[in-house]
Amino acid sequence: MSNPYLRTGSEIYEESFRIIRAETDLTRFPADVSRAVVRMVHAAGDPSIADDVAFTPGVVAAANAALRAGAPILCDSSMVATGIISSRLPARNEVICHIKDEAIARDAAYRGITKTMAAVDAWAPRLDGAVVAIGNAPTALFRLLEVVAETGARPAAVIGIPVGFVGAAESKEALIGSPLALEYLVVRGRRGGSAMTVAAVNAIASTDELTNTSRQD
Amino acid sequence: MSNPYLRTGSEIYEESFRIIRAETDLTRFPADVSRAVVRMVHAAGDPSIADDVAFTPGVVAAANAALRAGAPILCDSSMVATGIISSRLPARNEVICHIKDEAIARDAAYRGITKTMAAVDAWAPRLDGAVVAIGNAPTALFRLLEVVAETGARPAAVIGIPVGFVGAAESKEALIGSPLALEYLVVRGRRGGSAMTVAAVNAIASTDELTNTSRQD
Repeated sequence: MSNPYLRTGSEIYEESFRIIRAETDLTRFPADVSRAVVRMVHAAGDPSIADDVAFTPGVVAAANAALRAGAPILCDSSMVATGIISSRLPARNEVICHIKDEAIARDAAYRGITKTMAAVDAWAPRLDGAVVAIGNAPTALFRLLEVVAETGARPAAVIGIPVGFVGAAESKEALIGSPLALEYLVVRGRRGGSAMTVAAVNAIASTDELTNTSRQD
Repeated sequence: MSNPYLRTGSEIYEESFRIIRAETDLTRFPADVSRAVVRMVHAAGDPSIADDVAFTPGVVAAANAALRAGAPILCDSSMVATGIISSRLPARNEVICHIKDEAIARDAAYRGITKTMAAVDAWAPRLDGAVVAIGNAPTALFRLLEVVAETGARPAAVIGIPVGFVGAAESKEALIGSPLALEYLVVRGRRGGSAMTVAAVNAIASTDELTNTSRQD
């Protein structure tokens, strides 16, 4: 009945990262971005993700510096918030997600917008200097750009990896092309999701590849 | 500054599912499995996921019947547990995940195995008749097969969608080829993850496509 398999986390990680580096073209990435991309590929189980990554060269440094200075992480979904490993954050940073707040659901219904949009509006008082992690809803990223334009609050960095068939690709292109010139890390196109987003945040938060895990095995 | 985009959840879902059905070959799936596959494609942002789906024809019926009868859902990761929408479960089913229990970490360190394996061992008293949802760790799926063989407890269905470069593909093939003949729904190969797993569980739990969401926008 029994299948042979690696049974310790450190063995599994070392072998995983060896395979990823062998199969993924990382040459166009600065070292700190490359580390995040390796983790994103790991979370997706797919080296082709790397080809769709777009970024500003300073995004990892900006996000890491913000976290070290105590910035909160603003998440669009509870899966993203749950996946971020609090114990690895450098300054006991707050991980904030409003999507399950009852007041948000009421606000969204009243205004005829998505819950995600209402939840992004609720970020406003904390947005300036924050790290934003969007791993689910394209409307979160679209609304973020509106809130930044309307309020002048500027996040330190935007991990913008929403997924889907309606608006995901467009929202990421809007971030890339925005005259707001925010620091960003995205996966262009339809692909994305909470696992890749969490992997990027956890990679940015820490510099220890083998313990800085977005997985729990 | 503003980009035009759909702003209500129902519009976004309808358009998403229309695109997915237009771009995805669903002909080989029974109707109930097809509904789950549509949600998995949605969560991945990638119709090619459907080509890698393997399943037993009765898996959705078995899982749905188990949930209606009050079975718990046993999850390997907290992201999977968080993503399952409790309010849509038919019998206030328990969603169980041991991965963050302190006793599990101690047990794993003592035995020299992954935390995931120790967490799967802790499922044993609840395993018979349960719905298993593995969306992260290949070692969870490998260990599950061992526990079933050792204890004789049989889960009602296994949603087995771990992701990664070491053991993910192999663990799913082990489930498919197992003489234990469990009901299963898997994504063959390296790809997988918590988002697809949650999408499958939420689809199986409910029959209302437009409200049965694994996303929160």
